[in-house]
Amino acid sequence: MLVNNKEFRTVWMEEGRVYMIDQNLLPFEFKILGFNDYAEVCTAIRDMTIRGAGAIGAAAGFAMALAFVQAKDKNTDSFIGKARQEIEATRPTAYNLFYAVEKVFDAGMRSAAAAVQEARQIADKDAGDSQRIGRYGSELIGNNSGIGTHCNAGWLAFVDYGTALSPIYHAHAAGKELFVFVDETRPRSQGARLTAWELNQAGIPHAVIVDNAMAAFMAQGKVDMMIVGADRIAANGDVANKIGTLEKAIAANYFNIPFYVAAPSSTIDWNCKSGNAITIEQRDETEVLYQNGPDKDGIRHTIMVCSPGSVALNPAFDVTPASLVTAIITEHGIVKADTEGMRSVLM
Amino acid sequence: MLVNNKEFRTVWMEEGRVYMIDQNLLPFEFKILGFNDYAEVCTAIRDMTIRGAGAIGAAAGFAMALAFVQAKDKNTDSFIGKARQEIEATRPTAYNLFYAVEKVFDAGMRSAAAAVQEARQIADKDAGDSQRIGRYGSELIGNNSGIGTHCNAGWLAFVDYGTALSPIYHAHAAGKELFVFVDETRPRSQGARLTAWELNQAGIPHAVIVDNAMAAFMAQGKVDMMIVGADRIAANGDVANKIGTLEKAIAANYFNIPFYVAAPSSTIDWNCKSGNAITIEQRDETEVLYQNGPDKDGIRHTIMVCSPGSVALNPAFDVTPASLVTAIITEHGIVKADTEGMRSVLM
Repeated sequence: MLVNNKEFRTVWMEEGRVYMIDQNLLPFEFKILGFNDYAEVCTAIRDMTIRGAGAIGAAAGFAMALAFVQAKDKNTDSFIGKARQEIEATRPTAYNLFYAVEKVFDAGMRSAAAAVQEARQIADKDAGDSQRIGRYGSELIGNNSGIGTHCNAGWLAFVDYGTALSPIYHAHAAGKELFVFVDETRPRSQGARLTAWELNQAGIPHAVIVDNAMAAFMAQGKVDMMIVGADRIAANGDVANKIGTLEKAIAANYFNIPFYVAAPSSTIDWNCKSGNAITIEQRDETEVLYQNGPDKDGIRHTIMVCSPGSVALNPAFDVTPASLVTAIITEHGIVKADTEGMRSVLM
Repeated sequence: MLVNNKEFRTVWMEEGRVYMIDQNLLPFEFKILGFNDYAEVCTAIRDMTIRGAGAIGAAAGFAMALAFVQAKDKNTDSFIGKARQEIEATRPTAYNLFYAVEKVFDAGMRSAAAAVQEARQIADKDAGDSQRIGRYGSELIGNNSGIGTHCNAGWLAFVDYGTALSPIYHAHAAGKELFVFVDETRPRSQGARLTAWELNQAGIPHAVIVDNAMAAFMAQGKVDMMIVGADRIAANGDVANKIGTLEKAIAANYFNIPFYVAAPSSTIDWNCKSGNAITIEQRDETEVLYQNGPDKDGIRHTIMVCSPGSVALNPAFDVTPASLVTAIITEHGIVKADTEGMRSVLM
């Protein structure tokens, strides 16, 4: 996607170096980092310089490829084995990461060049799937639409285009007039920080709203549809996604507003029968109690935003029942959020 | 209510001085201000040192009384007339303010002592009404209840006890085990800052949650009831209250959880037919884009919490339709949220 009118992906490889956007500095600073050593890429994945399922997978693939490039001058077998272990340990719950590392590892058995090529193909497939999600999803968007979204399922979370935002980018490119309601998505504010930044770069009209305000704009008839991403979709169509997705889905249902989930088919966990089986990550309360950002001189501060002495509960995700999901937008088409609907297209 | 184990009201008068809690410093500092001049009280109302419908009304009454005390040594008529104008100009949309000023002004025509007595009676009535709301409301709270609340309708917004929190204080005092889910209430975070502070002082178990999380806790069966306050109730039972009230009410309805509104009967605007007639205040976008708080050394900073260049929409209130309100808890009893229900008890 365009940043200051130049095309970028979140992560790529060029002449034996891995490059990525430093997402820890966004939205306040845009900086590209370049790495010659797979171990530096490991650090970048670990400290969330790069984040989001698709982007992490691609970065891990490139890290593995980089290890093969580096191994030329080294004791190959032990170096590669150690690299694989280190890469796999960066974000141990990221499914895409293991998939990418394995594919690149196997290709690397032939040659370092084959490993690099495989890593590039994985990144290309991620970008291609996101693009297809955008093409299918944009058909659902009418001219002069108000669209609500939650958290960041944009291109920064993938290699390019993203999932929930991809239909919006495609509809905008097709000349449709849009207005996007971006909720902050406390506590990490990915909506206010990343989605708003993406839409700014793309020149798509939008406003940031507090997380409490979406239903009020729905009541005013200003939100024609909701599109969100997904962290994991159960076999029955239940959707685990960023905390608050459930509240938006209930509100959309109350106002008869379509609620779409955009996700690559790899997000569906066929071994997970329903949302009840999904364990919800409880994150540290400090994310709620404190907030970080720059003052008017650009100096970053961490401030307390809560009554001192209070505790916080900080579930990272919630589960939206399939009955509240109008449809799932995948790279293979738009499917009903139930086992039959998903199987018919995707298996 | 107790602060550091000592009884306080939000505002009171003693030996010709008006005292109040400085709410701009809360929850990070607890400080009492004392004023000898009505003009200082005007400034305090204007700059939100004191806020909340009931507390503003009482403060305005005391300001008017203070003017009569001061007038002893002055050209009485012109001084009192000017004082009344200045007090009424502090928060021109606060209905309670005009009511209190008029009552104290009339009493002051007899004597300064009568004015002070009238102002005290207004404050006492506010505290008494809140106490009665608490007694009625506490009957609805079972032992081992999980209670969700939104924004701050606690004693800081009134003279004592508050509205939404008063039933919680009374149930707690009666020995019931409670746990309160306090949502932050962005953008001004009255939940995380004021409600959490009040509950801390009262020793009532609670946790702060992000505004997006209430539905997730409802889905887990942890929230048995919601109690919120009201800024204005239309004659048909529609409730205008802090932005997000609507979203919580829709979620409570979805999960079949009772949704109570606690408010003195003076909150009902019989001239307002329905919520459609209520104008929603649009506040400045900077409230959403920036946040203020102390760092670990107690130094206050204002930081940007949004993508630079993004705009925000910041409606201060929303309207919850009467159909989503289980009942209204008033100082005269618990009434159904419709014209008949409200009239039967209150007119």
